[in-house]
Amino acid sequence: MSTLQNDLYLRALLREPTERTPIWMMRQAGRYLPEYREIRKEAGDFMTLCKNPELACEVTMQPLRRFPLDAAILFSDILTIPDAMGLGLYFEAGEGPKFERPVRDLAAINKLGVPDPEQELGYVMNAVRTIRRELKGSVPLIGFSGSPWTLATYMVEGGSTKNFSEVKKLMFAEPQAMHKLLDTLAQSVTSYLNAQIAAGAQAVMVFDTWGGVLSPRDYREFSLRYMQQIVDGLTRENEGRRVPVTLFTKNAGPWLDEMAKTGADALGVDWTTDLADARKLVQDKVALQGNMDPSMLYASPARIEEEVATILASYGHGHGHVFNLGHGIHPQVDPDHAAAFIEAVHKLSPAYHR
Amino acid sequence: MSTLQNDLYLRALLREPTERTPIWMMRQAGRYLPEYREIRKEAGDFMTLCKNPELACEVTMQPLRRFPLDAAILFSDILTIPDAMGLGLYFEAGEGPKFERPVRDLAAINKLGVPDPEQELGYVMNAVRTIRRELKGSVPLIGFSGSPWTLATYMVEGGSTKNFSEVKKLMFAEPQAMHKLLDTLAQSVTSYLNAQIAAGAQAVMVFDTWGGVLSPRDYREFSLRYMQQIVDGLTRENEGRRVPVTLFTKNAGPWLDEMAKTGADALGVDWTTDLADARKLVQDKVALQGNMDPSMLYASPARIEEEVATILASYGHGHGHVFNLGHGIHPQVDPDHAAAFIEAVHKLSPAYHR
Repeated sequence: MSTLQNDLYLRALLREPTERTPIWMMRQAGRYLPEYREIRKEAGDFMTLCKNPELACEVTMQPLRRFPLDAAILFSDILTIPDAMGLGLYFEAGEGPKFERPVRDLAAINKLGVPDPEQELGYVMNAVRTIRRELKGSVPLIGFSGSPWTLATYMVEGGSTKNFSEVKKLMFAEPQAMHKLLDTLAQSVTSYLNAQIAAGAQAVMVFDTWGGVLSPRDYREFSLRYMQQIVDGLTRENEGRRVPVTLFTKNAGPWLDEMAKTGADALGVDWTTDLADARKLVQDKVALQGNMDPSMLYASPARIEEEVATILASYGHGHGHVFNLGHGIHPQVDPDHAAAFIEAVHKLSPAYHR
Repeated sequence: MSTLQNDLYLRALLREPTERTPIWMMRQAGRYLPEYREIRKEAGDFMTLCKNPELACEVTMQPLRRFPLDAAILFSDILTIPDAMGLGLYFEAGEGPKFERPVRDLAAINKLGVPDPEQELGYVMNAVRTIRRELKGSVPLIGFSGSPWTLATYMVEGGSTKNFSEVKKLMFAEPQAMHKLLDTLAQSVTSYLNAQIAAGAQAVMVFDTWGGVLSPRDYREFSLRYMQQIVDGLTRENEGRRVPVTLFTKNAGPWLDEMAKTGADALGVDWTTDLADARKLVQDKVALQGNMDPSMLYASPARIEEEVATILASYGHGHGHVFNLGHGIHPQVDPDHAAAFIEAVHKLSPAYHR
């Protein structure tokens, strides 16, 4: 493996000194890039892109060729694990992910096995290895997975949902079945992320997109508890270096302090929480990643720079901040506005690290 | 007007002593009731129900005939104001509300007038008068409106939205146009709610369903500021009695303290904030309404009762709590479970008022 030339992202996650605030963007490889839309059109569908290591690598590299980003993130889907469990993931045009065989009772849950990451999910590990080679040590590679709760919502609902009726029905009416499902998922995510680390991921992130639809009590019992199980089971060092883990729950403002106690190195923060408040809550126990509203990229470059300044000031002086959007970049964003965003962070952040 | 026989709801909103915690349910008149589905089928579409005062009255009364609820709420839609402004509200099966003529630039915004509540919205005032008569003083009648920000999201997007791209594009790229729209809406909501009060609404509620998709800074500037303008302009006394106003922003946990400073009498709280924390935040300056996860109604009556006990304990001893769901009741809920919920509040809450 080549020596890492830019390790700002890894150092920031460990709250070590950096000369400026590192930046990457959630969904930085995606539909807002014309070169992505082209390769996606050729591939035909989204899962073909994910399952072909060369294409996944190419797509991962695209934003890095355009922008001075401080990390690459594996191009994949959060639903690879349930797909590997045999639920039959597919995408309907304009409708988001769906499962052919949703899981709605204990009998179906008991049949689920923990996928072997080098077998059923071997295509992901091959993508990680290919990307690591292609990066040539320029920036670190982030591996990721959906959280157990978030995966469970799709598995029980059979796709996206507005009300989370089915998954909450199971959770409230048959909590033991739900716990069994979440435990199987936590084991699967742990082994999946450890395999990504062994294959070359230098940091990992757990996306809990839907933890925020739970009450604080239910969040602790059905989401955080299983992210804790994952954090406890992760490989924390590889290639002679700490492998930082970031937890991200959307709408997690009120629970950031509890998330900080899991032993994760960093927390993702969406734009509904002020970074100043978040930092007070976690008392510098963890690094923070975030948190510009992705819609701000519709505004003028001058307005974007103003917002970057506000967010940097909100985090304040000192290390431990990774700049990012509070959620994925929207498909309609002009890539030049993304460039202005990244440039603003490069320009304005050094003042906070002196 | 008949004397009010049950004023528990009004007293609780003013933090006056009550012998138990009053309860009503958001969307208590709705699709989970077979008698609602029947009348809705006869009427043909949703807006016909809203625009016919006799039908709106009948539907408002339905849950009160089944359950010992402590308040009635006007059956109407949150989008009546933009409809009255000429945007052409319609509903597509299974798709939610849409507007024929969305508003996306300053020119379109400048053309919008403040509707006359007794003219363009006269059907709502007639419904309020009809319901008040029909209630015969049994319980108070709640009037309501969408908040300016929430109305603006539908008006700019042209319907429901996942990303709020269009409305945020306008907000970030043309903030002055957005402020003009929100000011026109705040004036309209104020005059609409005052007309409902004059027609007989004994309390009013402002639903800010989408304030929670904003950053704290943007929430203050684009949502809370205009709810403040409404609170300042409302008739606060009628028929010799205080007319309490409740503000409800979904996902507003972190801003409850700022909302409490508007002069509103009460705040609605969804299930993502613990009532104990909410009460600490607002320091008993306002009453609190909430906050059971509506999905809990899928669980067994025993589990529902357990959750009611937890929520009552979370608010704790003392007055100023109105029990409710944290959002509208789901259409798939069994009415018997709603009955069990209401019964549990009747049974368990007196202990907290001794």
